[in-house]
Amino acid sequence: MSGIAGPVTRLIENFRKLPGIGTKSAQRMAFFILKMTPEDAEELSRAIIDMKTSVRHCSVCNNLTDVDPCHFCTQPNRSGQLLCIVEEPQNILPIEATHAFGGRYHVLLGTISPLKGIGPDQLAIPSLLRRLENDGVQEIIIATNPNVEGETTALYLSKLIKPLGVRVTRLAMGLPVGGDLEYADAVTMAKALEGRRDL
Amino acid sequence: MSGIAGPVTRLIENFRKLPGIGTKSAQRMAFFILKMTPEDAEELSRAIIDMKTSVRHCSVCNNLTDVDPCHFCTQPNRSGQLLCIVEEPQNILPIEATHAFGGRYHVLLGTISPLKGIGPDQLAIPSLLRRLENDGVQEIIIATNPNVEGETTALYLSKLIKPLGVRVTRLAMGLPVGGDLEYADAVTMAKALEGRRDL
Repeated sequence: MSGIAGPVTRLIENFRKLPGIGTKSAQRMAFFILKMTPEDAEELSRAIIDMKTSVRHCSVCNNLTDVDPCHFCTQPNRSGQLLCIVEEPQNILPIEATHAFGGRYHVLLGTISPLKGIGPDQLAIPSLLRRLENDGVQEIIIATNPNVEGETTALYLSKLIKPLGVRVTRLAMGLPVGGDLEYADAVTMAKALEGRRDL
Repeated sequence: MSGIAGPVTRLIENFRKLPGIGTKSAQRMAFFILKMTPEDAEELSRAIIDMKTSVRHCSVCNNLTDVDPCHFCTQPNRSGQLLCIVEEPQNILPIEATHAFGGRYHVLLGTISPLKGIGPDQLAIPSLLRRLENDGVQEIIIATNPNVEGETTALYLSKLIKPLGVRVTRLAMGLPVGGDLEYADAVTMAKALEGRRDL
């Protein structure tokens, strides 16, 4: 990329490491920052460092937080008897967006993946079992991703936890609301058929 | 966006100010940075600040540079008799990518736009005229964008400069009309350079 000043190239290379950012996007972002006020650019730069230094995993549920325990674990109006299990902290967002869940969370920090050599030992399962034992949990909703690894993890957890007398449920799989039958793939359609309910 | 720690939300908001970055992209970028090594995150943060503090406009051609004059203005193998006029510093990149241009540049830092209230007075035209007078320029290639504002600017410059006895050319309209120089591929740009016509 001859023709770009070294410090600009350096920032472009740094941006290109981010997910979904190619060369053109990285260039546009860098040139945009060159036109920003120095204050706005410094705010962006500091926001990165401040986030890295202040955000940690919650010691209870592994959510990302700058207070420990995180606010999901301390909000008094949330039920500790209902636990939603997710793979990663960002998976909490779409569930919260429904305003339909009033329980707490547990983040596994990964998923069982024989291909990637990740077994149950590398997930936050021991801390989950401790919570089940101590917190009077009555139901866990397994909200791992609807793919092979997520399903494997859900099955493993189900076999592990059901014998403890805790109800184990899984998010429903089927047609996306607002979608069109025409665009449904065969696997999704099979799940939708399998999970059909009486009207 | 309840459920995200404050410092993460702050970084997401900062990323959302960048061009082409929506909420989802900003979230993915922030969560990716949370998983980066502290060293990589600090490097990204510093690259922003270092670029803002070290990069300035070249006092000769207005290109963005961390040395003044910029290396286009000092490279001895470039011909000072051939000048390529662009709107913005980033417009130099696709021209350099062709490896078909051996002259120097002049960045107008904008374009004539009656709608936005930008007239010739707000562009780097006086410094261009000084260069024409002092540097023995024999041809200028006008590489403003192939849209209404770029064309207006090209026409204005042509009327201003032709009487001085300098050859004035315009990039060929092999460029897709209504587009932006930033997105031109090297082959199209090479064709455009090759097919330039007298104004």
